[in-house]
Amino acid sequence: MADQLLLPGATLFYSGFFVLASGALVLAFFVYDYSTYREDTDTEDLAVSELALNPLRGGPKDLPIANHLVDDDDSPEKKGSKHKPKLVILGTGWGSVALLKQLNPEDYHITVVSPSNHFLFTPLLPSATVGTLELRSLVEPIRRIVSKVRGHFLKASAIDVDFSEKLVECVVTEGDQQRHFYLPYDKLVIGVGSITNPHGVKGLENCHFLKDISDARRIRNQIVRNLELACLPTTPDDERRRLLSFVVSGGGPTGVEFAAELFDMLNEDLTKYYPKILRNEISVHVLQSRGHILNTYDEALSIYAESRFANDQVDIQTNSRVKEVTPDRVIYTQKDEKGEVVTKELPMGFCLWSTGVAQTEFCQNLANKLDELGDELPDHSPRFVLLSYPLTLSSGRLSVPYVMLYYLPVTCDSELRMLYAGAKELMRNTAEVGKIIEIDTAEDLEEIEEKLKGEP
Amino acid sequence: MADQLLLPGATLFYSGFFVLASGALVLAFFVYDYSTYREDTDTEDLAVSELALNPLRGGPKDLPIANHLVDDDDSPEKKGSKHKPKLVILGTGWGSVALLKQLNPEDYHITVVSPSNHFLFTPLLPSATVGTLELRSLVEPIRRIVSKVRGHFLKASAIDVDFSEKLVECVVTEGDQQRHFYLPYDKLVIGVGSITNPHGVKGLENCHFLKDISDARRIRNQIVRNLELACLPTTPDDERRRLLSFVVSGGGPTGVEFAAELFDMLNEDLTKYYPKILRNEISVHVLQSRGHILNTYDEALSIYAESRFANDQVDIQTNSRVKEVTPDRVIYTQKDEKGEVVTKELPMGFCLWSTGVAQTEFCQNLANKLDELGDELPDHSPRFVLLSYPLTLSSGRLSVPYVMLYYLPVTCDSELRMLYAGAKELMRNTAEVGKIIEIDTAEDLEEIEEKLKGEP
Repeated sequence: MADQLLLPGATLFYSGFFVLASGALVLAFFVYDYSTYREDTDTEDLAVSELALNPLRGGPKDLPIANHLVDDDDSPEKKGSKHKPKLVILGTGWGSVALLKQLNPEDYHITVVSPSNHFLFTPLLPSATVGTLELRSLVEPIRRIVSKVRGHFLKASAIDVDFSEKLVECVVTEGDQQRHFYLPYDKLVIGVGSITNPHGVKGLENCHFLKDISDARRIRNQIVRNLELACLPTTPDDERRRLLSFVVSGGGPTGVEFAAELFDMLNEDLTKYYPKILRNEISVHVLQSRGHILNTYDEALSIYAESRFANDQVDIQTNSRVKEVTPDRVIYTQKDEKGEVVTKELPMGFCLWSTGVAQTEFCQNLANKLDELGDELPDHSPRFVLLSYPLTLSSGRLSVPYVMLYYLPVTCDSELRMLYAGAKELMRNTAEVGKIIEIDTAEDLEEIEEKLKGEP
Repeated sequence: MADQLLLPGATLFYSGFFVLASGALVLAFFVYDYSTYREDTDTEDLAVSELALNPLRGGPKDLPIANHLVDDDDSPEKKGSKHKPKLVILGTGWGSVALLKQLNPEDYHITVVSPSNHFLFTPLLPSATVGTLELRSLVEPIRRIVSKVRGHFLKASAIDVDFSEKLVECVVTEGDQQRHFYLPYDKLVIGVGSITNPHGVKGLENCHFLKDISDARRIRNQIVRNLELACLPTTPDDERRRLLSFVVSGGGPTGVEFAAELFDMLNEDLTKYYPKILRNEISVHVLQSRGHILNTYDEALSIYAESRFANDQVDIQTNSRVKEVTPDRVIYTQKDEKGEVVTKELPMGFCLWSTGVAQTEFCQNLANKLDELGDELPDHSPRFVLLSYPLTLSSGRLSVPYVMLYYLPVTCDSELRMLYAGAKELMRNTAEVGKIIEIDTAEDLEEIEEKLKGEP
């Protein structure tokens, strides 16, 4: 009897608890919701430095210098960091955001500059092109990340750096107008990323790229547009097959991931709502310049991907280099087994260009500034120079080796020579550089790029 | 003691149940997930009518006639409806979708034609402009809705209807090319919606509209762009105030809803991540041509909205008509209390044009076709004509009155006259028309528009 009486009691207890907990949650939600509304919209007295509103001009090009920002006095914490060393971070990609997450807000006056106001979770971008993921779930507003370290954000493009005066030249485009200004720094972090490598191929304006969120949206629209056009009674047979021919140039991770996502969509969602003739006539092609796709990864992975694609009827063309892309065709050369080069072409309704990355114009400009470094080196005294040097390897891959230049002019006196020689290993270890390049004249700087490229 | 021993037992029971239930749910998810993948990608033999792939030409303009569609034979059910009466629905808005949800798939061979491949939940569109709602949550792919009634969808624009041969002329734009075709119908439903009413104002290319999902995205981008520009050190004071001046032209539901959403965003989200100076300098203006905003609604609502906006420092300008919109200003005339008209202007960084709707070009063309109706009326015999006639009222509102024309030529013999007179009330009740317009010559058709507009 005790059993029968007590178990329902326990059930009642749990039911009661559940009801109470649910009630509390609903109540908590309304309290939270209420807290998100604010009634006081009084414009409070706001201290904004006159220098932030009308910056002084200066620097080599006599531009406004943004020494003070409009939100420098917005909170006591921000006021506190106003006179801290200025850390300027260019770009809002992986490098910049990883740094921002680890910074101590007490240490610097932080300013982030980028033409893009969000951080993008790039590995999932191929999934967003076919609608597996919502585009918005891949982005995080950079202002939210920056606010955690009490930083500032300026939506502008960095176009040049004056290393001697420690000024970043930024440009803002508004309609037809371009406005330039200088942003002063004490420490500068360059995380501007890279651009798609054109490899000198003609007709890339007929291709899609996959670097940014707007690229993903354009790709999605183009895929849907092609599918809808293919259903229409006015579309002739060969035109429909062309519209349904999806070509991916580049067998690296982006291209392979995209081809797989595309295939999944065509196979799973398409068949449900579109005429069946589309599924029968669709073709997905991957053009790869090397002998295997995913060739920078482990061989097992590469073989698995190839066998999987073969099973899925995704057509892989290896040893193929694209020569030209026209609005309706991709022309490429293929090396056959005998080593002979044949020119082939594919009709295409959509082409993704994902053949690796190249240096941005901004980085190229900075690299050219090594000459300026030469001007700064003294004639008779040694120097250590820490150099993070962006260059494009012959394989098309972007690499930014971090090295130490050990400048030791022949005319330098023996005491200084001893001093620097003794500090060399300490410097190498403290700075954690991989390689030391020794030079004895400023002219040797010109050979650095070749020396770095020559590395295994 | 029994209490103490049994309660933990019950707890164990519930914990066990919870673990089992969770386990079952996880398992169920994987089973479901597995079921969404398909291994068989064999291209099955597909029956597609040759006439669907190469439609015959005909009609007044000798265009391809889409009598058969490529997915007519895709499933046994679709095959079954192949020879049913053809119901063609133009547009994918509220009217068309409401109809689609109620149709019996057995009754018709259904084809939906629209340049837009989704149904948009328009009432929440203003919320999407500021990011309260995700754009994608407002749309439903029309193919999903159409597939429930085994219908077909063609992404094309209807531009003309040939009522005598029962053909809809459609056009597909692909790049620079335009392809026309005819779609035959037995019953035609026109649900093409309306366009924004320009009211003959100059410079509307400087305004944003709010009709479609892409409009909402453009508005969101423009708002963020303005806020970011306003933070920059190169932006002068008056320019910043202009960028932060948001003007809404039209005090109807769309304009008021948008102004409220904008204000909420500026007040709740903006202050957290943007410099405080922005919040202080932002202004939202609503220009309304009548004496009150929301004037088509109950007065209590209108007064509540106005007092709420006054409290929120949203500036309402009543009795104001916009004359011209330039890239940086809105010029409008305002009638003051004495009835005098003053010309004023507002600097603006963003202008929404939401002053009601007007007839599309397609509907205007159809309305002009009443002349054709005149040609079809017999000389000596009466006719009942059911007419759904779209017209724009003097208030700018679009109205589509549904009336019955009772055509009774004077030369008609008395027997027919008696027959039709007796059927008149029966027809009115069966067709559920609001009004009967009596005409005795085809020329009277020209006066119909005036007669309808003259209605209270």
